[in-house]
Amino acid sequence: MSFVYLDNNATTKVAKEVLEAMMPYFEQEYGNPSSIYDLASIPNKAIKSARETVADFLGANNPKEIIFTSCGSESANMAIKGVLDVNRAKKHIITTRVEHPCVLNLYKDLEKRGYLVDWIDVDSNGDLNVNQLIDLVKDDTVLVSVMMANNETGVIYPVSDIAAAVKEKNPKTIVFADGVQAAGKIPINLKDTKIDLFGISGHKFHAPKGVGALYVKSGTMLSPLVVGGHQERGKRAGTENVPYIVGMAKAASLAKESLQYELSEVKRLRDRLEEGILTRVKNAVLNSKSKNRVPNTTNIGFQYIEGELILLHLNDAGICASSGSACTSGSLEPSHVLRAQGVPFTSLHGSIRFSLSRYTTEKEIDYTIEKLPEIIQKLAKISPFQKELNEIMK
Amino acid sequence: MSFVYLDNNATTKVAKEVLEAMMPYFEQEYGNPSSIYDLASIPNKAIKSARETVADFLGANNPKEIIFTSCGSESANMAIKGVLDVNRAKKHIITTRVEHPCVLNLYKDLEKRGYLVDWIDVDSNGDLNVNQLIDLVKDDTVLVSVMMANNETGVIYPVSDIAAAVKEKNPKTIVFADGVQAAGKIPINLKDTKIDLFGISGHKFHAPKGVGALYVKSGTMLSPLVVGGHQERGKRAGTENVPYIVGMAKAASLAKESLQYELSEVKRLRDRLEEGILTRVKNAVLNSKSKNRVPNTTNIGFQYIEGELILLHLNDAGICASSGSACTSGSLEPSHVLRAQGVPFTSLHGSIRFSLSRYTTEKEIDYTIEKLPEIIQKLAKISPFQKELNEIMK
Repeated sequence: MSFVYLDNNATTKVAKEVLEAMMPYFEQEYGNPSSIYDLASIPNKAIKSARETVADFLGANNPKEIIFTSCGSESANMAIKGVLDVNRAKKHIITTRVEHPCVLNLYKDLEKRGYLVDWIDVDSNGDLNVNQLIDLVKDDTVLVSVMMANNETGVIYPVSDIAAAVKEKNPKTIVFADGVQAAGKIPINLKDTKIDLFGISGHKFHAPKGVGALYVKSGTMLSPLVVGGHQERGKRAGTENVPYIVGMAKAASLAKESLQYELSEVKRLRDRLEEGILTRVKNAVLNSKSKNRVPNTTNIGFQYIEGELILLHLNDAGICASSGSACTSGSLEPSHVLRAQGVPFTSLHGSIRFSLSRYTTEKEIDYTIEKLPEIIQKLAKISPFQKELNEIMK
Repeated sequence: MSFVYLDNNATTKVAKEVLEAMMPYFEQEYGNPSSIYDLASIPNKAIKSARETVADFLGANNPKEIIFTSCGSESANMAIKGVLDVNRAKKHIITTRVEHPCVLNLYKDLEKRGYLVDWIDVDSNGDLNVNQLIDLVKDDTVLVSVMMANNETGVIYPVSDIAAAVKEKNPKTIVFADGVQAAGKIPINLKDTKIDLFGISGHKFHAPKGVGALYVKSGTMLSPLVVGGHQERGKRAGTENVPYIVGMAKAASLAKESLQYELSEVKRLRDRLEEGILTRVKNAVLNSKSKNRVPNTTNIGFQYIEGELILLHLNDAGICASSGSACTSGSLEPSHVLRAQGVPFTSLHGSIRFSLSRYTTEKEIDYTIEKLPEIIQKLAKISPFQKELNEIMK
């Protein structure tokens, strides 16, 4: 095998079927969907059909609730800024300490612009303090923003319950759930929830990088982020990225078909990897013990070892993993998610995220379980914490 | 031939070489460019190289001046909103009556938000009233926004001269040029101009729909539109659309190589089409007689005939053309560009834009010249303006 890819929360490969579905729209069916001649009718119908597929994937009531965007970050920016813009008098926002950097940085920016942001904690298992959140909802709470699944730990937050409780306390508060790491990994059925806005990113479930969607529940008011033409019913200007929209719809239908496989077989492989590592590597600790985790993710701390060194040695062994969000790679800051959980410094700097996909094989998992102990042994020898390691490793 | 595509200002087909350049980045080199393992290094280098190519294409001083976006509309929104956000005290904007709907609608929205927008006129040839524009620049003019070439008429506006004159009057005024319809059609050399911001859209020059760029001259301050991760040096969050970025760079280098062909051969075919129609169709008038037009575009009015009917009959003959921007298709409003020029109602509703590309053949042009007179003859018979038409057509 050429390499073992265990970083599917960073990005995924484009599925063969997705690529095939996109191909006709580059050189042949390239008409602008807004044009009136026949050449435009196939792309136009393709977008309509894609919208229905994505609506079905998310359990929306109506395809009109789906707005195509260029990525998860755009979906989040559109949701958040769009809601704030139509509710300019209200200045209170509630979010969590463990959102994706894209969302987190936006709220930090909004704090500087006069918004009051409350940041909700997680416990040592990674679970969210839901009561704290609900207690904070007040009259001028314009937005509650909670991700559905955490990108680093895989912990699932009860966004449906949160939305219901928020709306009970203040029906006018808008609930945005960042669904980027949930889509394709767990069932989603938005019509049965009080969630108003839900963002996804195609490249997290085997569509290409550069396409996303925002679910906007019927009746939810928000201003567009990209103002201009009439596309997406005036909600998002710009000529539609027909190939990628078609591709994301194909990826969504494949993900829907594969959901049972994800919940059983991918989970089995993830558990095998997790148990394999925890059993064989003495300084390994599971960072988020929450019972509610997406089936493909594990985050393991290797005490007294530097995470970047582990990643480089994994890379040499042909294994791709990460120490946190790809969006923060290169920074030496330890993960804000693990810090929020109170992960001690002993393993904070040596924490590795492994994220599988339906393409991950048992052979790849076994190879990783075989290689990792050797790598940790080697790195333990050069760690400045010899005394502490001797204690654990013996 | 299957159909004659003369609507390249609406969108273009993806060049074969562009598609080939993109292909490796879907299933093989799919790593997240921000990751640190080897799988990420090829996409990472590909983006770096693409940035250099696009910088060269636009004549930028430095690749860092290029920010990749998801489309021309995003580039324009990022430029305009980004500049206004860092200059919140200044409320005066100058633009033209003939901008693309994407830009026009954004300024209309800004007027509602308390901005004072001055709209510059064009004359009957389509040329911009530059003196009027410069006269209006004052101390609190935050932004001057003029497109480089008009999408409907192809008229080129002297944005370099405008930028120089604006800066002379107020060095702090930022100049944004929407370059969407200029890129690939005429030479662009931004480093020799005072233009601060310049937006392009890949799908107008044979890259796919869903990728664009914004040139930001070094030293120009602007807030990001999509806030979040560190991508594009913090100027545009979101995992990079590696295949399309690579594709747009390939399209840019092909466009650069083809520029002489565009200025000579595409122009020859456009002139052949224009003269052919004006000679053979008695009620045809050239809408923009400006000496400065991009080589691929002509806009012709057919007096007393309904434009949508012409388009439908052209479609039946296998010819794709349009009556204005694709972004306003379906609306029965006559073109805001032609109205600004003072095109009389007699031809305003019967105006057709033909836009060629380097893939357009002489055979296709001759076929169009042959078909169009038949179509106009047929439609003249059912026009409610028989008396007026008899006068012209005899």
